[in-house]
Amino acid sequence: MKFNGKFTLGKNVQIGSNVQIGDNTVVYDNVIIHDDAIVSNNCVIGEPLASYYSDPSYENPLTVIGKKSLIRSHSILYAGVETGEHFATGHHVTIREMSFFGSHCSIGTLSDIQGHVKIGDYCRLHSNVHVGQKSELGDYIFIYPYVVLTNDPTPPSNLCVGAKIGNFSQIATMSVILPGVEIAEHVLIGAGSVVTRNVASYSLTMGNPAKHIKDVREIKSRETNQPHYPWPQNFERGMPWENIGFEKWNNLKG
Amino acid sequence: MKFNGKFTLGKNVQIGSNVQIGDNTVVYDNVIIHDDAIVSNNCVIGEPLASYYSDPSYENPLTVIGKKSLIRSHSILYAGVETGEHFATGHHVTIREMSFFGSHCSIGTLSDIQGHVKIGDYCRLHSNVHVGQKSELGDYIFIYPYVVLTNDPTPPSNLCVGAKIGNFSQIATMSVILPGVEIAEHVLIGAGSVVTRNVASYSLTMGNPAKHIKDVREIKSRETNQPHYPWPQNFERGMPWENIGFEKWNNLKG
Amino acid sequence: MKFNGKFTLGKNVQIGSNVQIGDNTVVYDNVIIHDDAIVSNNCVIGEPLASYYSDPSYENPLTVIGKKSLIRSHSILYAGVETGEHFATGHHVTIREMSFFGSHCSIGTLSDIQGHVKIGDYCRLHSNVHVGQKSELGDYIFIYPYVVLTNDPTPPSNLCVGAKIGNFSQIATMSVILPGVEIAEHVLIGAGSVVTRNVASYSLTMGNPAKHIKDVREIKSRETNQPHYPWPQNFERGMPWENIGFEKWNNLKG
Repeated sequence: MKFNGKFTLGKNVQIGSNVQIGDNTVVYDNVIIHDDAIVSNNCVIGEPLASYYSDPSYENPLTVIGKKSLIRSHSILYAGVETGEHFATGHHVTIREMSFFGSHCSIGTLSDIQGHVKIGDYCRLHSNVHVGQKSELGDYIFIYPYVVLTNDPTPPSNLCVGAKIGNFSQIATMSVILPGVEIAEHVLIGAGSVVTRNVASYSLTMGNPAKHIKDVREIKSRETNQPHYPWPQNFERGMPWENIGFEKWNNLKG
Repeated sequence: MKFNGKFTLGKNVQIGSNVQIGDNTVVYDNVIIHDDAIVSNNCVIGEPLASYYSDPSYENPLTVIGKKSLIRSHSILYAGVETGEHFATGHHVTIREMSFFGSHCSIGTLSDIQGHVKIGDYCRLHSNVHVGQKSELGDYIFIYPYVVLTNDPTPPSNLCVGAKIGNFSQIATMSVILPGVEIAEHVLIGAGSVVTRNVASYSLTMGNPAKHIKDVREIKSRETNQPHYPWPQNFERGMPWENIGFEKWNNLKG
Repeated sequence: MKFNGKFTLGKNVQIGSNVQIGDNTVVYDNVIIHDDAIVSNNCVIGEPLASYYSDPSYENPLTVIGKKSLIRSHSILYAGVETGEHFATGHHVTIREMSFFGSHCSIGTLSDIQGHVKIGDYCRLHSNVHVGQKSELGDYIFIYPYVVLTNDPTPPSNLCVGAKIGNFSQIATMSVILPGVEIAEHVLIGAGSVVTRNVASYSLTMGNPAKHIKDVREIKSRETNQPHYPWPQNFERGMPWENIGFEKWNNLKG
């Protein structure tokens, strides 16, 4: 009963096989939805950019939703968003134009991607993450609720310098990454931090302003009392090394 | 004109007397909505769990909305949510599966309850509160905007240790409660705190990291210059001791 | 195709010329939408106050949307909201009753205006800003994501003392303004601050708790290495001095 056909389609919409679209959803012009994707109810796909309202020759940029993606209800993807396979959103998500996602990314409920960003493979943004324009994320990055990636060093200005986050890094809840900050690989940013400077690989950094505390490899699991980081050795749910183990997967990958 | 009958009902939906349902709302299978409840427009009630999309034998868990509840527009309650009487939500609220609420709770606009939580009676979560899985809240608890209750001590991991919050406690805006932290009764957590350790009853605790500042009973009202805490002696709007006074109500209760 | 006429109108709705209303949008009683305004899909305009559900003689307060306004999808404006011309919202915005906006204001995606507030001209609230009741904002104020303006000094209580923010001030992301705090003109509050005391004009204030750091006029642009503040001399996009320059505009204004 989810799908009663009460959606609206624009022009030049290509829908793959076995795609399902929920009620009260609007799909604008120039959208490709690949096979086996689900777009739930009350969504907007290919939301037109601002000039749609004023420019009579406006043409909607191409929007692409990858195979086996799941867009949950009340989400809005602007025209010009492109996602890889197995992309997922929570509810009430907004993703603005020119946002590019690799495969197997998930973007949590209420998250707000401001557009003009690149996000790699297997990234998980939990609920209510705010990603400013010009942010760049590598692969296997987890960002937790209420994290904000900023981009204007002297607000308001026309400068826009996004944050960069390296593979495998983790940004804990309620942290702010200041404009242009580069976070290397395997970093852990503690909850409630304001990160004002670049962070080296394997650093546990936290506080306001955030400081290097120790090497993440010194942090032990509360459960096993063994080192938890690098985390891919101890966590595999949804990762490409699931059921293989990180080391073996890494070796196979070459 | 709110109610033009343009909603959609699944199978095995039991609707009590005098229930009102708004337009563009979808109610999935196995939902009970008790008497005098209002579900406004553009809501989803009994949103199916993830396996709905892949498991052909999927059966939606029971969802129960208590008598005289008010679910405001654009809210999503997953299957497996059960609420007591006089439950209320703001707009754009998301409540995931296996969340249990006592009576007279209200959950503010944009709040995000991650599921598998227990929340007692007369709790008020204001706008944009994030409650992680396995959190447990007692009764008469107020949580203010942009508070996050976390649960993973070494992210990412498979450990999930929720926060516990005792009766009458107050968590002010933009605070983070770290995994497994226990907050006792009548506590006040100041705005913008990161709470890393257990907090004793009647403590005013604040800062990043949060520290005990003083006994809440030393805090005076800016209006009366008299002690404000324990707050039930000075605040009764919407509480069961309204028009009786806390002391008398407490004595009557035995 | 945005506009297929699938919206619902209440009684006494006055719609100006060239107004466009999206599908699945509900407009309640006693609403005026002025010329050339656009209300996108899945919105609620003139959402009734709580007594609508219980008071048979309930009459919806007047709601006014100014000329050339743009209300983006999934936004909810309560009855009693009045906006000037060129008002804009992002998506999933909630604005409660008795909120008054000057001209050329924009309120970002997910922002939550709690009602009973006054906001001047040319204010820009970015995504996910929370404005408590009784807040007062002047003109040309920018507030960045995840900022919270509070109003209850001893929660919970019946005291409600809003924050006041002066012309040209900037509140950076993830900051909390405590109840009754007055921020003067041309202030810059740094990211992640908890502002507990009044702030003088031209102060850069930051930290938890926030402290005066220096005069904003000492801050240099990362781009030009010249002083950036007062910012109107260096930023004009969308401001009334665009293409004229602030000084000339200010002189012309008299």
